[in-house]
Amino acid sequence: MKYSNFFIPTFRENPSDAKIKSHVLMIKSGMIKQETSGIYSWLPLGFKVLKKIIKIIEDMHESNGINQILMPTIQGADIWKISERYDTYGKEMLRIIDRNNKELLYGPTNEEMITAIGKHFIKSHKNLPRYFFHIQSKFRDEIRPRFGVMRAREFLMKDAYSFDKDEKSGELTYENFFKLYLSIFDKLGLKIIPVRAPSGEIGGNLSHEFHLLLETGESKIFIDENFLKNNFSDFKISEIKSINSFTDELYESLNINQSFTQLKSTELGHIFLFGTKYSKSFDFKIDYENDKIFPYMGSYGIGISRIPAAIIESSNDDNGIIWPKEVSPFDIVLINLISNNESTVSFCEDLYSQLKAKNYDVLLDDRAERPGIKFSDADLIGIPIQIIVGKNFVDSKKIGVKTRKNLNEDTVYSDNIIEFIKQMDI
Amino acid sequence: MKYSNFFIPTFRENPSDAKIKSHVLMIKSGMIKQETSGIYSWLPLGFKVLKKIIKIIEDMHESNGINQILMPTIQGADIWKISERYDTYGKEMLRIIDRNNKELLYGPTNEEMITAIGKHFIKSHKNLPRYFFHIQSKFRDEIRPRFGVMRAREFLMKDAYSFDKDEKSGELTYENFFKLYLSIFDKLGLKIIPVRAPSGEIGGNLSHEFHLLLETGESKIFIDENFLKNNFSDFKISEIKSINSFTDELYESLNINQSFTQLKSTELGHIFLFGTKYSKSFDFKIDYENDKIFPYMGSYGIGISRIPAAIIESSNDDNGIIWPKEVSPFDIVLINLISNNESTVSFCEDLYSQLKAKNYDVLLDDRAERPGIKFSDADLIGIPIQIIVGKNFVDSKKIGVKTRKNLNEDTVYSDNIIEFIKQMDI
Repeated sequence: MKYSNFFIPTFRENPSDAKIKSHVLMIKSGMIKQETSGIYSWLPLGFKVLKKIIKIIEDMHESNGINQILMPTIQGADIWKISERYDTYGKEMLRIIDRNNKELLYGPTNEEMITAIGKHFIKSHKNLPRYFFHIQSKFRDEIRPRFGVMRAREFLMKDAYSFDKDEKSGELTYENFFKLYLSIFDKLGLKIIPVRAPSGEIGGNLSHEFHLLLETGESKIFIDENFLKNNFSDFKISEIKSINSFTDELYESLNINQSFTQLKSTELGHIFLFGTKYSKSFDFKIDYENDKIFPYMGSYGIGISRIPAAIIESSNDDNGIIWPKEVSPFDIVLINLISNNESTVSFCEDLYSQLKAKNYDVLLDDRAERPGIKFSDADLIGIPIQIIVGKNFVDSKKIGVKTRKNLNEDTVYSDNIIEFIKQMDI
Repeated sequence: MKYSNFFIPTFRENPSDAKIKSHVLMIKSGMIKQETSGIYSWLPLGFKVLKKIIKIIEDMHESNGINQILMPTIQGADIWKISERYDTYGKEMLRIIDRNNKELLYGPTNEEMITAIGKHFIKSHKNLPRYFFHIQSKFRDEIRPRFGVMRAREFLMKDAYSFDKDEKSGELTYENFFKLYLSIFDKLGLKIIPVRAPSGEIGGNLSHEFHLLLETGESKIFIDENFLKNNFSDFKISEIKSINSFTDELYESLNINQSFTQLKSTELGHIFLFGTKYSKSFDFKIDYENDKIFPYMGSYGIGISRIPAAIIESSNDDNGIIWPKEVSPFDIVLINLISNNESTVSFCEDLYSQLKAKNYDVLLDDRAERPGIKFSDADLIGIPIQIIVGKNFVDSKKIGVKTRKNLNEDTVYSDNIIEFIKQMDI
């Protein structure tokens, strides 16, 4: 992609209304624009990051046998009356009346709809277990949306749902989702702490949240001092159930005697094994050994549009964002410092093609801007590798290679550049 | 993907409420499920088709330098009051009041929002031209939603928007989108007829729709007899403007003397060059040669979720769907007729891996179902190539290869199967 053709409207000044670093940097790097309170557009750079995150989540769900579907954003109120959540969900639910005076709502979550889908299609235990996920916009009418996409009203969520024949099979599914979540966050470069959580209005009695430690986080979690030494991905369901970490809500309700360390964090995922709560209220029964049973269900959410902000919040410096390789919008920014010089232009065009042929995703800064602007934009948008082609190249075929995370710069002969990039540890 | 793990809930009976073939077949093949009037879920098979279509549209937009963004579904009413469309848009607009009594709406289209984005970020003609697209759910509160996803209330749309410095540059952009649309529909295997259209409430005086001829189509178009001989993709803007085909609405308003052929069709795309209508109402000015000018704008829509239905409507037989290769959910269905036989199981598993390694997208029907069910499901879901492994394989290493579009079946020795598939013309 050429910078001149890829719209990255960067700003020099800090936005006045942004209170945390990630919100400031997402505005300054032209990733997002607020449309109205708590509602954002994702601009090309922001959307490219979002797509990389979505791709990772989709692939890892698919390779775990979880089928992708797409449920609509708008739901009929009728199914929420069946589960009796229409009244209990509270004012966060965006209620809508259509032109025929029918009650609709913008889905804040989809337990009711997936139960209705299950009831419609699944008739026998032979069809179980079944796992579905979808990635769709959700709306929760927060009273105080803030911190940019970290706490928005309209946001993108991955929600998955499971149908099992009984509690034992449901717990195995829950264990697998628990591990899948750890590997997804690991792949995204995020050190995540799983904590036991209350089930709240979703229901059931087994629930965990996945938290990222952040000074600016709005959540508090309580953990045992020895807790972080664990490798949670080895855990069996019994260990998952008794894991020694808690959300503040659960911690306060438990009245625990032991002393726990309190940390600030942000919630990125939440899983629930709620059992037969919805299959019972929908009277969703399936055939099982000459009997009829209520399938055992769970739901598993990841707040996708919050992830870029969480990554930035934990990975930045005074110059801007530092993207981990896996979710960086580009692998390399190739900066031509002298955009009106024939030799740098043709070298950069050629290198750009070569790198693309080797499957690097490259942003070629071909703009007619001052070097200072190109340098500060490159640091701000935070792509892991910067290749700098300027006077040194014209004079002596030498180019700069800067690693964004530590700002180290190496000088490399232009003939060796591809080899050099290949061995870089970013 | 193994059939046992990919959820395709097929039905034998015709659904009572479906009036057109595509709606019948999408229900019977388990592609979609209605949630409430005009609102659908896409099940795994349906969503896989949708994703293939989305990928084609995304790639072709990107290779034309059109930047992908994501605008939200919910918009503030304020921007629609600026353009004065809040009142004129009519009851199709789904109006919403949030918990703070602020007026919101579910976007039926995004001209207002993209103009606000343009005004916020684009300050100079040096930033033009700029093209953006996004793929997002839209809502239009149809009084009579019908024909499944063909005329839904919530639907997926690709909408693109252009900013140019003047009319001439805007017309060049319009010409490029016109040609891009023809190549997208061509790639999707659809024979599309461009017709001149009135601009309606979007505004401006240059607009075309892209129609698929369909007996069950709800639209009427009027064309000159010689019209279909044209290669529209060679057309320049003057020819595009004077193209001899019309929507019924435009045809009736023009009072044309010449006789035209009337055909039934379905609209899949609509483009508008509306000029400065929105930039003026938003007072969006940019610097241009010591002056301030209003950018010249256009918008370009494709009804994505209508496309699978349109394809099915024009490509089916009594047995079910016939997917064109480009958008088929899978390339090949590999049917193991004897799922409890060791030699067919191991052959199918092995062939499945080999085909996947050659980048074929394969559905392996490993279910413990009767051959009759496997055959009728394979015909119903319409994957181009069926590989049939049964008694013939056990006896003499022979397998069947059926071409879905003409139901021809060849017998091939198992050793030659990969070579045979490679040379198939589907």
